[in-house]
Amino acid sequence: MIIFKQLSVKTPEREILMDITHEVRKILSHSNVREGICRIFVPHTTAALTINENADPNVIRDIINYLKALIPQHGRLGYIFRHGEGNSDAHIKSSLMGFSLEIMIHDQKLMLGTWQGIYLAEFDGPRYRKIYIQIQGE
Amino acid sequence: MIIFKQLSVKTPEREILMDITHEVRKILSHSNVREGICRIFVPHTTAALTINENADPNVIRDIINYLKALIPQHGRLGYIFRHGEGNSDAHIKSSLMGFSLEIMIHDQKLMLGTWQGIYLAEFDGPRYRKIYIQIQGE
Amino acid sequence: MIIFKQLSVKTPEREILMDITHEVRKILSHSNVREGICRIFVPHTTAALTINENADPNVIRDIINYLKALIPQHGRLGYIFRHGEGNSDAHIKSSLMGFSLEIMIHDQKLMLGTWQGIYLAEFDGPRYRKIYIQIQGE
Repeated sequence: MIIFKQLSVKTPEREILMDITHEVRKILSHSNVREGICRIFVPHTTAALTINENADPNVIRDIINYLKALIPQHGRLGYIFRHGEGNSDAHIKSSLMGFSLEIMIHDQKLMLGTWQGIYLAEFDGPRYRKIYIQIQGE
Repeated sequence: MIIFKQLSVKTPEREILMDITHEVRKILSHSNVREGICRIFVPHTTAALTINENADPNVIRDIINYLKALIPQHGRLGYIFRHGEGNSDAHIKSSLMGFSLEIMIHDQKLMLGTWQGIYLAEFDGPRYRKIYIQIQGE
Repeated sequence: MIIFKQLSVKTPEREILMDITHEVRKILSHSNVREGICRIFVPHTTAALTINENADPNVIRDIINYLKALIPQHGRLGYIFRHGEGNSDAHIKSSLMGFSLEIMIHDQKLMLGTWQGIYLAEFDGPRYRKIYIQIQGE
């Protein structure tokens, strides 16, 4: 069985990690997949997807802020960005973080770890972002 | 249904992002998968795969050049590479970017966003590189 | 057919790449999948998974050590981590490297390249880590 769904998310800031775990679980709960895979994909080039800690909100702040220091909006290390839209940093961060996640379904449960949440990584907001979700299994 | 195909690509420079979207779409067009997944994998350790903007070529130049500044061929930050082949930078960049992509197929379409292209990231060329493509679905 | 298995690994140091290729192949050898996918996932937020060279051990040392220089335990670039557990660096590195791998199975073989090994990336050890493995195919 294969199910395809689309989510829409409004990101409130230029750079932020937004927890979408609840939305993904809700879609999953309507399927009856016992064993399979839950795929998540962003069809953008300045936003990404990641997994990280869902307990202390300082963790995701440290991630977004340290990436901002490492790859600032207007460059560093003597390199001047050529792309004229002022968001080359967002393209770079997205390619490093990745545009998709694949999380196993086993015994009808999404096999996330206890401390793992699913995050949309916005690097060039605020914007409306689309997220594709595909559930495949038995 | 599962289809497996192999592409061969010659990369022209040491560090370059090469658009392979057309080649992937061509393989997909010969399948009749309506709902499923298109997987792409490089069986190398100094090349990777990513998705990014297909419109302004300065975007992919900024990605490759900023990564070159962050992780230069002969190191930085006081760290001297031990591996004797002069390509530790390429191994590091590849592990950060990743060796595989998974792109959904829905309604017989590859679900890339409007501005998304698929790129082979060469970090230690020029070389011949292999790319595996697997299409699975109904 | 879908198989789900769990591995347990004890990591000996704070930051290390551990080769788990043999363990993954052993699980695969008990399945009879001819065409399909082998998925690997870590249910943690300070450890990750990657592929890289299995020949010269200096390659994986260069990867772990250069990441340590780029994202040190107590920060850099004027940024002070807010998360109080002293492992924000491990959370950042894990999100950049990624928590899952997907490796194709074709003709009953795991389609790794000649020089590719599968590594658990520990960024906040020593610890016991769980690894989920899912094999799906025909």
